[in-house]
Amino acid sequence: MVMQVCDLPIPKKIRLAIKNDEIQRTIIKVNGTNIGGEHVAVMAGPCSVESEEQMIQAARAVKDAGAQILRGGAFKPRTLPYSFQGLGEEGLELLALARKETGLPIITEVMSTEDVDLVEGYADILQIGARNMQNFSLLKKVGRASKPVMLKRGMSATFNEWLGCAEYILSEGNPDVILCERGIRTFEQITRNTLDISAAPIIHQISHLPIIIDPSHGTGTRSLVEPMAKAAIAAGADGVMIEVHPNPEEALCDGAQSLSPEEFKYVMNGLKPIIKAVNRRL
Amino acid sequence: MVMQVCDLPIPKKIRLAIKNDEIQRTIIKVNGTNIGGEHVAVMAGPCSVESEEQMIQAARAVKDAGAQILRGGAFKPRTLPYSFQGLGEEGLELLALARKETGLPIITEVMSTEDVDLVEGYADILQIGARNMQNFSLLKKVGRASKPVMLKRGMSATFNEWLGCAEYILSEGNPDVILCERGIRTFEQITRNTLDISAAPIIHQISHLPIIIDPSHGTGTRSLVEPMAKAAIAAGADGVMIEVHPNPEEALCDGAQSLSPEEFKYVMNGLKPIIKAVNRRL
Amino acid sequence: MVMQVCDLPIPKKIRLAIKNDEIQRTIIKVNGTNIGGEHVAVMAGPCSVESEEQMIQAARAVKDAGAQILRGGAFKPRTLPYSFQGLGEEGLELLALARKETGLPIITEVMSTEDVDLVEGYADILQIGARNMQNFSLLKKVGRASKPVMLKRGMSATFNEWLGCAEYILSEGNPDVILCERGIRTFEQITRNTLDISAAPIIHQISHLPIIIDPSHGTGTRSLVEPMAKAAIAAGADGVMIEVHPNPEEALCDGAQSLSPEEFKYVMNGLKPIIKAVNRRL
Amino acid sequence: MVMQVCDLPIPKKIRLAIKNDEIQRTIIKVNGTNIGGEHVAVMAGPCSVESEEQMIQAARAVKDAGAQILRGGAFKPRTLPYSFQGLGEEGLELLALARKETGLPIITEVMSTEDVDLVEGYADILQIGARNMQNFSLLKKVGRASKPVMLKRGMSATFNEWLGCAEYILSEGNPDVILCERGIRTFEQITRNTLDISAAPIIHQISHLPIIIDPSHGTGTRSLVEPMAKAAIAAGADGVMIEVHPNPEEALCDGAQSLSPEEFKYVMNGLKPIIKAVNRRL
Repeated sequence: MVMQVCDLPIPKKIRLAIKNDEIQRTIIKVNGTNIGGEHVAVMAGPCSVESEEQMIQAARAVKDAGAQILRGGAFKPRTLPYSFQGLGEEGLELLALARKETGLPIITEVMSTEDVDLVEGYADILQIGARNMQNFSLLKKVGRASKPVMLKRGMSATFNEWLGCAEYILSEGNPDVILCERGIRTFEQITRNTLDISAAPIIHQISHLPIIIDPSHGTGTRSLVEPMAKAAIAAGADGVMIEVHPNPEEALCDGAQSLSPEEFKYVMNGLKPIIKAVNRRL
Repeated sequence: MVMQVCDLPIPKKIRLAIKNDEIQRTIIKVNGTNIGGEHVAVMAGPCSVESEEQMIQAARAVKDAGAQILRGGAFKPRTLPYSFQGLGEEGLELLALARKETGLPIITEVMSTEDVDLVEGYADILQIGARNMQNFSLLKKVGRASKPVMLKRGMSATFNEWLGCAEYILSEGNPDVILCERGIRTFEQITRNTLDISAAPIIHQISHLPIIIDPSHGTGTRSLVEPMAKAAIAAGADGVMIEVHPNPEEALCDGAQSLSPEEFKYVMNGLKPIIKAVNRRL
Repeated sequence: MVMQVCDLPIPKKIRLAIKNDEIQRTIIKVNGTNIGGEHVAVMAGPCSVESEEQMIQAARAVKDAGAQILRGGAFKPRTLPYSFQGLGEEGLELLALARKETGLPIITEVMSTEDVDLVEGYADILQIGARNMQNFSLLKKVGRASKPVMLKRGMSATFNEWLGCAEYILSEGNPDVILCERGIRTFEQITRNTLDISAAPIIHQISHLPIIIDPSHGTGTRSLVEPMAKAAIAAGADGVMIEVHPNPEEALCDGAQSLSPEEFKYVMNGLKPIIKAVNRRL
Repeated sequence: MVMQVCDLPIPKKIRLAIKNDEIQRTIIKVNGTNIGGEHVAVMAGPCSVESEEQMIQAARAVKDAGAQILRGGAFKPRTLPYSFQGLGEEGLELLALARKETGLPIITEVMSTEDVDLVEGYADILQIGARNMQNFSLLKKVGRASKPVMLKRGMSATFNEWLGCAEYILSEGNPDVILCERGIRTFEQITRNTLDISAAPIIHQISHLPIIIDPSHGTGTRSLVEPMAKAAIAAGADGVMIEVHPNPEEALCDGAQSLSPEEFKYVMNGLKPIIKAVNRRL
């Protein structure tokens, strides 16, 4: 159909992150899970790594419900220096332990050039957070890493700026970049952010990179995770990232948007008919 | 599930537009079509009424493809006074003719308190455009009309401001208010607006009013209409409003976001599995 | 100096509101006060007309302190229908009484096409509020009025959209349009709006119309009125609009941003050295 | 006056960056220039260091016109990896040479934790750019440096977020933090950013830290630098940062907003009456 052809303006100065004669679609393999192909990838886990018990419980719960990748933050970007900053290397070790217990590959954030080697030693996917989207030194450094990188969109970034940041990583030689929409800042005050679902079809028209959508940070509201995760998949996203905590009320970070294991199972069941309706599979 | 309970702050000063003991869900009946219940309502047609031939062709095309309500603008809000301002009353007559030919009820915009009686004489649903969302004189006037009113969200309006405007209509005695998300203004420049899909679950949690989503204005981009219409329905919207023109290249207004009849039929077919997946029907 | 030449893009489709061979600068005369020339115009008074005593006190206070034009709202655009909506025609009569007492010309808002004739019968300047900036029916109607019109900028409007709205008024035959910047919506939450001081030099480069700046609505914060009024004049604004209430704590509307008569006198004294520094006079 | 008391909400979790019993106003001394007291500080120079000739010419020109601090970027944050990234250490050496020639202290950006020691070895003030405002690792590192830090506001940052970032630096032990407003992102498209002049009075009410305003990045438009610099000083800013290039047409970066030496001299002369009107001095 004519309608299917891209009618968006293609950024002229971006070379590697846009579709081209060589690459129409990048599929990234992580421990047997494909990100970017027919499958819908589900990344789930707590906002931050807090303890061994919490991580093991969370890892088992998200695996049971069907998630393929475990998330958890060891280095946390916080608005104030007095907030919990994450367990650091101890957190990375707990993530590795949870991977060993469940077999799930792990994704975790790296915030500093000086920590890239350390985090790369533990993680299966390196995450760059929204606040560091244009931390160009960090982008160059993870562009020389040997692990895939998931680049979250900045809170007020345009699509072209975001792709320009992916270009920084790609141009250093790392071909495995995953984009992640996590909500943009708008005037709305009853939600934490406004999740831009159009990121999925727009990125797919312009770029060959896979696009994940994070309805947890994107709304900041537990009850909105399910409908927005459905919307993400209906719009063509290659996966979703969802915060799950064994005990959301006691979470050290972002409890209001975290699902309990039971709620996550419910959401996963709700997603299945949508995944099928768009001819994809978990 | 706990998750299903509303965890959003309920605006305290809004009385009629929020859920309450008497009303949990408003269903509005328009010529046999229900807006707000199990059905997904599809409103379709050209941005502006241009000629008899155009309207009859458009009406037949959208009916054939399964739309239940015909849209078309006779009074057009344009950024500059030199742009086509709509056919006015002649346009209303052509809409009435298209209704007679196809049986489809019609929705059309009213821009001025002085035109409310005139437009009410022709239309089945009165539309208030985004730029007039806080035109309080107009809201009060349509609040005294006997036809349902579809209130589009202002380009930078918060949910509470939008519900406050619905309250203006409701408090004048008109119980039939439909809300319509049509894209908010963001920093993005490759699309006309950013469609806020979260409007569907958020409005459903706070308010009893039905919520329609307009992916045509919401993206301004033909190729994004299908994925974003799917996302809207997956997120729980009560319907979609889609621009269809017999010949988009020759449209006097918004051609870049209008679908041809063939494209619209393709989109409608694409929506069906999603409608089924969320247990609703056309 | 090269620097003084306009290096901003001139909107191509706007004809009357931009500088042209015939008009480089419009000066509007209102009861002996010039708006747009060497003088700096000061419009002051309460947000809304509340009573005879309040208006007479306010009018005397602002005249004593050096204001040349009296403001006061008889028709108030409010977010909710249950808030005080203004005294209507009674308010207009009180404004006329205050004018008679003090000799100050009056500016007041008109919100509906149906009220234009009424308001025109009382006011010296018709004000169009931010929420009605793109109420095109209202713009056309005041474009046929015989009084000057002050057009406030919409909360999220671009300069070109704003000038397009001025064009609506001008193209109907009314040459006396004053622009008023009153703060734009941003992500900031500790102020009501963000006052865009650059409106003064930008409008002066592109347009021949006078530009007034409103630091009261523009900040929503009493203590910010003085520094922002100074900034407005330093940047070249043709005047300021300031809210003054005989008793701000008891104001029915916008008390937090209203100055007491003493505070207003203090602000006026603070403005004088700046007015002199930019070679203008009150 | 009552009006002078702060009526803005004070962020409760910020301890060091807000006014307190011990500190009402921080004055930072840099090579005999005071930032934050009676003086108005002028920082000027090219966007990026390009060559010895360019830097020496720029340094002499800005000194002659009255600037007290020389700016120039050796490490440049650019949207795309293919744009000029700055001369790096060679650029730092050229800055040091220009300082030697003119006696002007130098301010330059540091983008990476790994470069902090290097840049600290050359610069008199370390600059953190807008894109790195929430690069918390970098903030902690410069918080342990022995040179003052100028922290630019992020493009969409609120005041509290900005102060939270200053808190990161202060809490590591560096008391010399200067804040710099450089324009926020808005919907306006004819300017690069919208300069938020209210940053000056707001920061002065809440915080003891000095506040500089950058009308060059804040507008992106040469002709707007003078009126907006005047506005900044009228509103109480402790200084301005202005881009000056010996030959703006040939600048490798940001030429459209750079002033020539003659234009800069003209601007400086224009600022003098405003500086005097607010009882300050260069």
